[in-house]
Amino acid sequence: MAQKLYYFNFNGFGEAIRYILHYSGQKFEDIRYERKDWPIMEVKDKLPYGQMPLYEEGDRSLNQSMAIARYLASKTGLIPSDPWDQAVLDAIVLDIYDFSNKIKMWFMEQDPGKKEALKKEYVDDNVEFYFSRFEKHLKNNNGHFGGKLYWADFVLVGIVETMNLYFGIEIEKKYPAVQALIEKIRNLPGVKEYIANRKPYSL
Amino acid sequence: MAQKLYYFNFNGFGEAIRYILHYSGQKFEDIRYERKDWPIMEVKDKLPYGQMPLYEEGDRSLNQSMAIARYLASKTGLIPSDPWDQAVLDAIVLDIYDFSNKIKMWFMEQDPGKKEALKKEYVDDNVEFYFSRFEKHLKNNNGHFGGKLYWADFVLVGIVETMNLYFGIEIEKKYPAVQALIEKIRNLPGVKEYIANRKPYSL
Repeated sequence: MAQKLYYFNFNGFGEAIRYILHYSGQKFEDIRYERKDWPIMEVKDKLPYGQMPLYEEGDRSLNQSMAIARYLASKTGLIPSDPWDQAVLDAIVLDIYDFSNKIKMWFMEQDPGKKEALKKEYVDDNVEFYFSRFEKHLKNNNGHFGGKLYWADFVLVGIVETMNLYFGIEIEKKYPAVQALIEKIRNLPGVKEYIANRKPYSL
Repeated sequence: MAQKLYYFNFNGFGEAIRYILHYSGQKFEDIRYERKDWPIMEVKDKLPYGQMPLYEEGDRSLNQSMAIARYLASKTGLIPSDPWDQAVLDAIVLDIYDFSNKIKMWFMEQDPGKKEALKKEYVDDNVEFYFSRFEKHLKNNNGHFGGKLYWADFVLVGIVETMNLYFGIEIEKKYPAVQALIEKIRNLPGVKEYIANRKPYSL
């Protein structure tokens, strides 16, 4: 069944999905649009809620990056079998998204002074709030969010890479367990080859 | 195993969880804090990411309303068995949350003129964008998001009730399938008795 992923030519909420697809060896069409061209109305109008990523499998489609990543994980052994363990990873992914979504205020702020203050708040306070917690969780769980490699690990890496690009930082430098996880994901079979051939993203 | 739910004395992101617990006949301690008293630092500091709802089951706890609702659903037959069908409901719940989260800008705006404009935009445009889609989805699926009663239906009702309270509107009036679903949920065994005994929420 033909698999297609529609997203920007950017990491953002799409990269974790790409990592999972490459790691699990699933052939998919990686359809990318340039952010500077967006919105492309003939594409946007066909999206169920006007937003990417969109995942297609044969004649059916799925929106929402978290739903897509979790679904692909469930097909490829990247999800635990116990409902409680599944829920713990759902919560972590939602926590990672909360962290990520806090940049919206910065993104939308037009005033340069206020924008700089929001960036400082994000980089100084928000990163520490979330990553001190992620670091602790990883240390307590064998370097993974769920004790071994599951989908939430991929989600973290995609978001860290995106935030690093936005703010010119390296979040993982202060958090050794996070850094080790990122290195591990980047060197997974499938992911490693994908990254080696991937062109650098720009803002 | 003792079950506890910690949330505000408010509908918000907690009410769907309460509905699911009452409908499935699970005994739980419904611990509520007044929003005017928040933050209560001795409570907030114990929350893994500083936010409610928090769900406890014996000695383990889970944050994130979506993760909690989905977990409780998985225990009580309120989730489909097929991974694709599960993912479709995950996406719908995330779409409902997106709709809900768009009020954050309104919530945080201090300027009365701008705040009123954001309210108008929300009530006029945002509601129609999302609810025309929800309505269509419900009509195409036997009045439910997943063809029969599943957890996403409860999530919709909790969020509609919250937005109606915030803006003094009745979203469902223009959307008959949404209205029918809300009525159905409110009259479910367990939910009906809970609502009959519930004190009205206020802002």
